Amino acid sequence: MSGLQLNDVFLARQRIASQVRVTPMEHSPSLSRRMGVPVYLKLESQQITGSFKLRGASNAIAQLDTEQRAKGVVAASTGNHGRALAYAASQLKVKATVCLSHLVPSNKVQAIRDLGAEVCIVGQSQDDAQREAQRMAREQGAVLLPPFDHPAIIAGQGTLGLEIIEQLPEVAQVLIPLSGGGLFSGVALALKAANPHIRLHGISMQRGAAMHASLQAGYPVDVEELPTLADSLGGGIGLDNRLTFSMTRALCDQVHLLDEASIGNGIRHAYFQERQVVEGAAAVGIAALLDGVIEPRGPIVVVVSGRNVDLEQHLRVLAGANQ
Amino acid sequence: MSGLQLNDVFLARQRIASQVRVTPMEHSPSLSRRMGVPVYLKLESQQITGSFKLRGASNAIAQLDTEQRAKGVVAASTGNHGRALAYAASQLKVKATVCLSHLVPSNKVQAIRDLGAEVCIVGQSQDDAQREAQRMAREQGAVLLPPFDHPAIIAGQGTLGLEIIEQLPEVAQVLIPLSGGGLFSGVALALKAANPHIRLHGISMQRGAAMHASLQAGYPVDVEELPTLADSLGGGIGLDNRLTFSMTRALCDQVHLLDEASIGNGIRHAYFQERQVVEGAAAVGIAALLDGVIEPRGPIVVVVSGRNVDLEQHLRVLAGANQ
Repeated sequence: MSGLQLNDVFLARQRIASQVRVTPMEHSPSLSRRMGVPVYLKLESQQITGSFKLRGASNAIAQLDTEQRAKGVVAASTGNHGRALAYAASQLKVKATVCLSHLVPSNKVQAIRDLGAEVCIVGQSQDDAQREAQRMAREQGAVLLPPFDHPAIIAGQGTLGLEIIEQLPEVAQVLIPLSGGGLFSGVALALKAANPHIRLHGISMQRGAAMHASLQAGYPVDVEELPTLADSLGGGIGLDNRLTFSMTRALCDQVHLLDEASIGNGIRHAYFQERQVVEGAAAVGIAALLDGVIEPRGPIVVVVSGRNVDLEQHLRVLAGANQ
Repeated sequence: MSGLQLNDVFLARQRIASQVRVTPMEHSPSLSRRMGVPVYLKLESQQITGSFKLRGASNAIAQLDTEQRAKGVVAASTGNHGRALAYAASQLKVKATVCLSHLVPSNKVQAIRDLGAEVCIVGQSQDDAQREAQRMAREQGAVLLPPFDHPAIIAGQGTLGLEIIEQLPEVAQVLIPLSGGGLFSGVALALKAANPHIRLHGISMQRGAAMHASLQAGYPVDVEELPTLADSLGGGIGLDNRLTFSMTRALCDQVHLLDEASIGNGIRHAYFQERQVVEGAAAVGIAALLDGVIEPRGPIVVVVSGRNVDLEQHLRVLAGANQ
């Protein structure tokens, strides 16, 4: 399928153990009551840099050779991947450059600088920034680190799956946010190896679910990118996808697509019932449970993947809005 | 002073290791920028049951003998101590009864039941509930567990201090919420044993700081209890205080009292800059830094002690209110 084995995940964990946090597995009384079976939240929103992305980025950078480390890494991301890469590189004393467009607000620029990266501001769109990152990688010999479709990234995200099976070996179902499939593939690799009977649900938003459309088509396809509360789940899977499409196809038992109101409910539930600030992408598992689309077979683990929500939006959602 | 030694804290940790979480030490870029020295948040708000209280409660229950376990434990608390006791007792298969008055809202009653305790609802005030708890302890031979002035509680809270020194051995100053002094005494015991030069700040609210008034008087005194955002810090230290008054007097380098606007700022900073939901009592260390009353000598650790804030109040504070 991909050549990736469970052992790659164990190797990843050994590499990144000092860089990432073992995140809490928290029992949710309210969701357990609603489902009638035990429900736990895997609070990866409490990971350093605020999302699971640090696992993959740390693993990828740890595997660079001396020459690559000297030349540094580069990426174009205003979001969780950029933050994770910046932090992981600084911890491993590797130079990281994150390319951003002039449209990125200054607080996001500062957040990435705070995490230790150089910031290169260029152009008027994410595409401009992406082209500049590719140009820099070519010219300087720096390593361009993709956000998900890379064996080291997938194996790194898989360490989250190892934690799940260690913290709750009797787990029956796991709900995982599904976007490019890096998180899903890694976590699924670890969980299915531990117990092929664990049922794995990939959860996406209705507005622009590229992996779901690709699974339906049977090959990677593009979808229109639309505004959504789960903005971290947006974007394509790459028409030349090498790993995460086939891994997700092989390992995912069911995909669920959620509307914006459901995702808003998930964000509100996380705050009002669990006292957690989470981004829309991280709330989709909770939202699926609230929607009643998951059969009540437990224990159920919900992967809560990040907390890097725009806080003005978060407050609007808490007040009842769904955008 | 109290007879408590650092070794009691190590013993406590051994007892409670499987019951409590090692909580994250998180670097705060925004507070570090403001202070000009590294600032870290010790996020005990991510502890199981949402506050540090679980450490002491777990240690106290773990030390009960067979006969005491058979008879169970009892307390009167609508707050963090009650929640912690309920959870700790259920984990150790000890019967816990939490006495509450009829005025306690049903969601708080449910939260304590969710954590595994029996709930006894009696009378119209916290005093009525306290009297009932004392009566039950006498009649049934159950152990009445006080919230702070008890060696097992103090040693348990001290495990938080061990984590601080292990996670950041070079720490220079620590800001600790100060109420009855259980948290302060335990953490200070561990930190001063590790390095007597670590400067320890106790932070309370202006509205009803019983420990501060007692330190000023030279002996335990009562103060009027007033509404405050830091409600978990309210209440007296006990006119017959045995341990925490003398320990705090010996180990606290400085006490700071904050007004309500400062505490509100601390809560807002935790949300808008750190994406953390914290209660007022837990925000006082952040608030003290924002107030500029702490000299810029780092690294500084701020103990963020709990997240069990009333969420309607939290939303009001986020919108700018200070009550």
